[in-house]
Amino acid sequence: MLSIYDGALEELIYQLGRLPGIGPKSAQRIAFHILGSSAEDTEELVQALRQVKEHVHFCEVCGNVTENERCAICTDERRVKNTICVVAHAKDIQAIEATREFRGLYHVLGGLIDHVGGVEEKDLRVRELLERLYDGTVEEVILALDTSVNGHATMLSLSRILAPAGITVSRLAVGMQAGSEVDFADEISLGFALEGRTVISE
Amino acid sequence: MLSIYDGALEELIYQLGRLPGIGPKSAQRIAFHILGSSAEDTEELVQALRQVKEHVHFCEVCGNVTENERCAICTDERRVKNTICVVAHAKDIQAIEATREFRGLYHVLGGLIDHVGGVEEKDLRVRELLERLYDGTVEEVILALDTSVNGHATMLSLSRILAPAGITVSRLAVGMQAGSEVDFADEISLGFALEGRTVISE
Repeated sequence: MLSIYDGALEELIYQLGRLPGIGPKSAQRIAFHILGSSAEDTEELVQALRQVKEHVHFCEVCGNVTENERCAICTDERRVKNTICVVAHAKDIQAIEATREFRGLYHVLGGLIDHVGGVEEKDLRVRELLERLYDGTVEEVILALDTSVNGHATMLSLSRILAPAGITVSRLAVGMQAGSEVDFADEISLGFALEGRTVISE
Repeated sequence: MLSIYDGALEELIYQLGRLPGIGPKSAQRIAFHILGSSAEDTEELVQALRQVKEHVHFCEVCGNVTENERCAICTDERRVKNTICVVAHAKDIQAIEATREFRGLYHVLGGLIDHVGGVEEKDLRVRELLERLYDGTVEEVILALDTSVNGHATMLSLSRILAPAGITVSRLAVGMQAGSEVDFADEISLGFALEGRTVISE
């Protein structure tokens, strides 16, 4: 989009436009909102951005977000310890939790296998997942991955790797829309998909 | 939306959700993007936000955004000085400029008359507009306002105020959208299009 702005306003519109889901029109709208809002409001946003960078990192066990060594789910005594739900990204945990259908633990892979983009099994937190299965507590691993080509490739790879562990491996029911992302599914569909998950091997 | 996050991440999602056009899902997506991006990238965004609050304000002549006393359009010698295009907000200038159809000056009202919301003529930069007409340079004022109830009220009010000045007052044509079908036009737009029809030959 042709821009008549220069200096600080153009820079802010550029920086906002780099964020996911924010196009040139939205970036301009937000920049003008910032311009018209109080200095205190803007400073609150600035501090929130910095605090996240300073204090939030990933749980050393499951890879979920936390401000401590272990996340709120891993340290919650009420969670069921015999089931691990494997997700691609930490943000997918929020979507699964919203269904209120799952009371076990999580494991974040940190992505999906992507043969085109050069992401292989070794680039994901697969070894960390296997380590969590050693003590025999875990009886089922649910693969809650996108129903995309990469999600499917990751599911096949993981089910092959997990086969010798002698545990139940399941995946989300095909009740999700084909080609959709876990992160964007509505909580009812995602709840059905969890409830009707399909056993791959046991 | 139910949130499993607390502390810094929840605060950032809240702060992002306060921006216009950003819902809970977008706020979460952006927050995770921030979490995953480099500290330098986030600091660039932080600085861009602060620079806008510190350096950008409104042109003392027309009300456009600027980092100086007068904006880039008011100080541009190539702009035609005898026509002023009146807009509600500074961001509307960008939309008019994108048409490349206008080479005159602008005047930002700072809003529209809104009888329900309690915005009256005196709350807008109308006096400042009249002051710009005193020296006789301006021959035409174009009212480029929304075709809403408030835009219409503002247009009527301004045309009444400007009548004694002895200048041409015009407004944007109302009609069909470019490239649209008669069959799909709403009846109000189609009514205006008929009423303001252009003679091709006579």
